[in-house]
Amino acid sequence: MTKQQLIENIRRHESFLCVGLDSDRKKLPRHLLGEDDPIFAFNKAIIDATAPYCVAYKPNVAFYECEGVDGWVSLERTVAYLKKHYPDHLIIADAKRGDIGNTSAMYARCFFEQLDVDALTIAPYMGEDSVTPFLGYPGKWVILLALTSNKGSHDFQMTANGEGQRLFEEVIRKSQQWADDERMMYVVGATQGNLFEDIRRVAPRHFLLVPGVGAQGGSLEEVCKYGLTDECGLLVNSSRGIIFADTTEQFARAAAEKARELQQQMKQLLYR
Amino acid sequence: MTKQQLIENIRRHESFLCVGLDSDRKKLPRHLLGEDDPIFAFNKAIIDATAPYCVAYKPNVAFYECEGVDGWVSLERTVAYLKKHYPDHLIIADAKRGDIGNTSAMYARCFFEQLDVDALTIAPYMGEDSVTPFLGYPGKWVILLALTSNKGSHDFQMTANGEGQRLFEEVIRKSQQWADDERMMYVVGATQGNLFEDIRRVAPRHFLLVPGVGAQGGSLEEVCKYGLTDECGLLVNSSRGIIFADTTEQFARAAAEKARELQQQMKQLLYR
Repeated sequence: MTKQQLIENIRRHESFLCVGLDSDRKKLPRHLLGEDDPIFAFNKAIIDATAPYCVAYKPNVAFYECEGVDGWVSLERTVAYLKKHYPDHLIIADAKRGDIGNTSAMYARCFFEQLDVDALTIAPYMGEDSVTPFLGYPGKWVILLALTSNKGSHDFQMTANGEGQRLFEEVIRKSQQWADDERMMYVVGATQGNLFEDIRRVAPRHFLLVPGVGAQGGSLEEVCKYGLTDECGLLVNSSRGIIFADTTEQFARAAAEKARELQQQMKQLLYR
Repeated sequence: MTKQQLIENIRRHESFLCVGLDSDRKKLPRHLLGEDDPIFAFNKAIIDATAPYCVAYKPNVAFYECEGVDGWVSLERTVAYLKKHYPDHLIIADAKRGDIGNTSAMYARCFFEQLDVDALTIAPYMGEDSVTPFLGYPGKWVILLALTSNKGSHDFQMTANGEGQRLFEEVIRKSQQWADDERMMYVVGATQGNLFEDIRRVAPRHFLLVPGVGAQGGSLEEVCKYGLTDECGLLVNSSRGIIFADTTEQFARAAAEKARELQQQMKQLLYR
């Protein structure tokens, strides 16, 4: 998917919501546990219910990998279902991969050929040659971790170098030599509110993938205040707050309601 | 496996070799491609041939993940085979995972419960709460990326903060507040030769997992000069240099020969 297509999808849906498919088997509605593939049955219902209100889905690979072979089957089915029924929705595999060049090339094959998602989150610690193998796929996106939503983001990401530049800023600056805003996005946690101004100083036109609204406590209003651009420039993710809003047989309806609430707020923020 | 057990295994084998099972399907000996599970058939033969000369095996998960569901089956079989036939060999899943707390807990479940390996490589970028969920498993090891073997290690890992401390040193220092040398090791690339002296200054008693000998050009001699401790303190990995030494029907014998050569060098270095 190109940047222009993503922007058009956002305009059409009046939404920049990404629904996080962190489909922890232990949290699924009980009545689904008798299904042949409970995780896929859950995802399918969530997707059908929330698709009108979002532009992207983000399965976090950990929740599938921890089920072993069965989990990979559920993930493959989920991606295939999205590609068939909702081809305009961006599919982001949240995997936070990254390794030496020849190994990153293997991960790229895994996610961009085998699974065939549109975008993949990547950890920057190992530098340029750990990232560039993912950039060889036209229409596919690299979403690099910059400033994450968790408490541990303060351990290393905020450390300033000799010139006063913090690590997350160095990651954003340096990685712009590897690809531009048509191929790369950055992860910036919603919990980092006021730092969005600093981020926009180094990445004025990049899309930012923003986790941390909802269960983690980030504010959509604050993210938009500093993060929105004239092309929108944001994909705001909510996972648990939407998909586990309710765990009765009404779970899909409750998820749709939560997604719609966020979409309505986003619509107002987009046109303000 | 405890640190003491690992040290005893090293003494018994007179070796601190780790064999990297980067079993790229595209590089397998042709005659194995007709097997039901070629990757497992390959690994089994490599393991049986090299086990006398090494103390650890390190499948890099990328090479399995890129085969989708089949790849996970091969990985599970490989781990089960090792646990049954070579229970004294440390099994390291080289996965370089790391995510927010609740998600890292899922990866921990995946690798330490489902797959049940002894050790897992972890990327430090997201800080403390991305690492601690992996520390809740007695007898299991976290191997944190510190200074990697690739060119990109110079992009961020070498950046000095205001006090002149480089990021890899900061990672090693800070992470020692999370666990000690009985639970944590560090990845330090063999290509970083002279920096082992600096590493030993901040981590005098930790085991270091050292990739980059062989295909990547690192020197075993130089690594040992600065890296060896009175407990050995090193696990030196070789992947391609051993497992793809030959791709004819003699591949396992060639792998054994390469592993034995390294073991012989290690024996000399251990007793010098």
